[in-house]
Amino acid sequence: MTTITDLYPSRGAAEVSVPRQDPVLWGTPDTPGPITAADLQSYEHDGFLAVPQLIGDDEVALYHAELERLIHDPAVRADERSIVEPQSQEIRSVFEVHKISEIFAQLVRDERVVGRARQILGSDVYVHQSRINVKPGFGASGFYWHSDFETWHAEDGLPNMRTVSVSIALTENYDTNGGLMIMPGSHKTFLGCAGATPKDNYKKSLQMQDAGTPSDEALTKFADRHGIRLFTGRAGSATWFDCNCLHGSGDNITPFPRSNVFIVFNSVENTAVEPFSAPVRRPEFIGARDFTPVR
Amino acid sequence: MTTITDLYPSRGAAEVSVPRQDPVLWGTPDTPGPITAADLQSYEHDGFLAVPQLIGDDEVALYHAELERLIHDPAVRADERSIVEPQSQEIRSVFEVHKISEIFAQLVRDERVVGRARQILGSDVYVHQSRINVKPGFGASGFYWHSDFETWHAEDGLPNMRTVSVSIALTENYDTNGGLMIMPGSHKTFLGCAGATPKDNYKKSLQMQDAGTPSDEALTKFADRHGIRLFTGRAGSATWFDCNCLHGSGDNITPFPRSNVFIVFNSVENTAVEPFSAPVRRPEFIGARDFTPVR
Repeated sequence: MTTITDLYPSRGAAEVSVPRQDPVLWGTPDTPGPITAADLQSYEHDGFLAVPQLIGDDEVALYHAELERLIHDPAVRADERSIVEPQSQEIRSVFEVHKISEIFAQLVRDERVVGRARQILGSDVYVHQSRINVKPGFGASGFYWHSDFETWHAEDGLPNMRTVSVSIALTENYDTNGGLMIMPGSHKTFLGCAGATPKDNYKKSLQMQDAGTPSDEALTKFADRHGIRLFTGRAGSATWFDCNCLHGSGDNITPFPRSNVFIVFNSVENTAVEPFSAPVRRPEFIGARDFTPVR
Repeated sequence: MTTITDLYPSRGAAEVSVPRQDPVLWGTPDTPGPITAADLQSYEHDGFLAVPQLIGDDEVALYHAELERLIHDPAVRADERSIVEPQSQEIRSVFEVHKISEIFAQLVRDERVVGRARQILGSDVYVHQSRINVKPGFGASGFYWHSDFETWHAEDGLPNMRTVSVSIALTENYDTNGGLMIMPGSHKTFLGCAGATPKDNYKKSLQMQDAGTPSDEALTKFADRHGIRLFTGRAGSATWFDCNCLHGSGDNITPFPRSNVFIVFNSVENTAVEPFSAPVRRPEFIGARDFTPVR
């Protein structure tokens, strides 16, 4: 266990909610980067920022083709970093994609991407986690409400809320095919969940959130206070969101699949220590221990 | 089995798609009723008509209170017309609500409601089915794609597509809480589904569509051709839709429950005969045999 003060206790006997102890924006107004001052303010307030077109159509085609190549590569399929859906035997996610694929590594180093992360986190950044997600339609389940930070803190040992994620759409997100939902402003409250972390929890939690799931009462309070925003947008659009946003997604009964690349940047001044509420670290391809700044 | 010509074969060995053999609008331009000519045309084209406010806030309060009274009445709970969700033991639907509750009976007789049905179907109408639906949040599942007519024809013996449904919202339908989705224009093609009707299929099909479910291939073709429209709207809004619209709903992971009253009007010139593709009739509270015109 970590001896640093645990600002965000979780996975204890009872659910407990505490105000955020960290800023949302760690940079200063003159921290360089592509995000406008107005957008920074709305990110600070809501906890997210929707970018209608982060990458162009030709780049979407490039990354989508690379995604298809990876998920059809037997070597990638055999790699423990690939998450295969039992029934269909189809790949749902490939982790550490920035290490497996040079094309996705370039995307991580792209100033439109890493530049925004540095600007928000006010420092150099490294990749805490990256993955490509391939979510089919025809009833594929969504992902229930959770805060990523609650898991990254409890199971990966990230001390502070100085982490930001970006989900870049490689297919269109309609209002019908189970897109990302966020409760705007929920990032300003930390919800410590009840229930100890089971051993090897990560194996299950990649398919379905269980440990670290808010109670119905908490969800009702959050939703009544904050409402819920659904993110739609064309392929190439992106959603930046603070590590402590309460988010989830519904199932997708449409025939329209959803693919995206998901990158988590963490400040080099917030590197992972030992898990705050879990018996063991998660594997490095899920919670990085390589803190090399993105260059 | 019925000896009338079966215009819409289904539940055979293979899935088969045939063009609609019936008009969508059975009235003539001078058939009286509240729907404008332009709205009638859009209903003919899309197969549905969204009415932003069919009933007022005070009426919503009245009907919502009546819904709450019914689902908390032990006698209603014990009635076979109530569908109780096994795990939570909560009532999900109450059928034949227009017979159980005089308040809902008045709604059925309301000219804003039955007047629209007569106008669309070009004749007197009776209630083929009515129910109140109470769909909680927190992950309650939706209802997969299906055409109601496919079931009403196969299992209730409705000969022709001369039936219209209205879903009147008693709570707000957001873009996040698993609202009704329809493929606009899908009503102009009948999709006969593969697979015989199991005995007592209705007991299962009230919770989850199984017999009468389109294949992935068919859904992909329909969705590519027609797209998918999600219906949102405040409490008091309503969606009228043709009996052969391909429709479904996703799950609801939000805390916001969805309640509605669902009424199916059938033309008195299209009364039920014997099922076209099922061994036995469904119970009368699901597929009426009382053809008394609504007055």
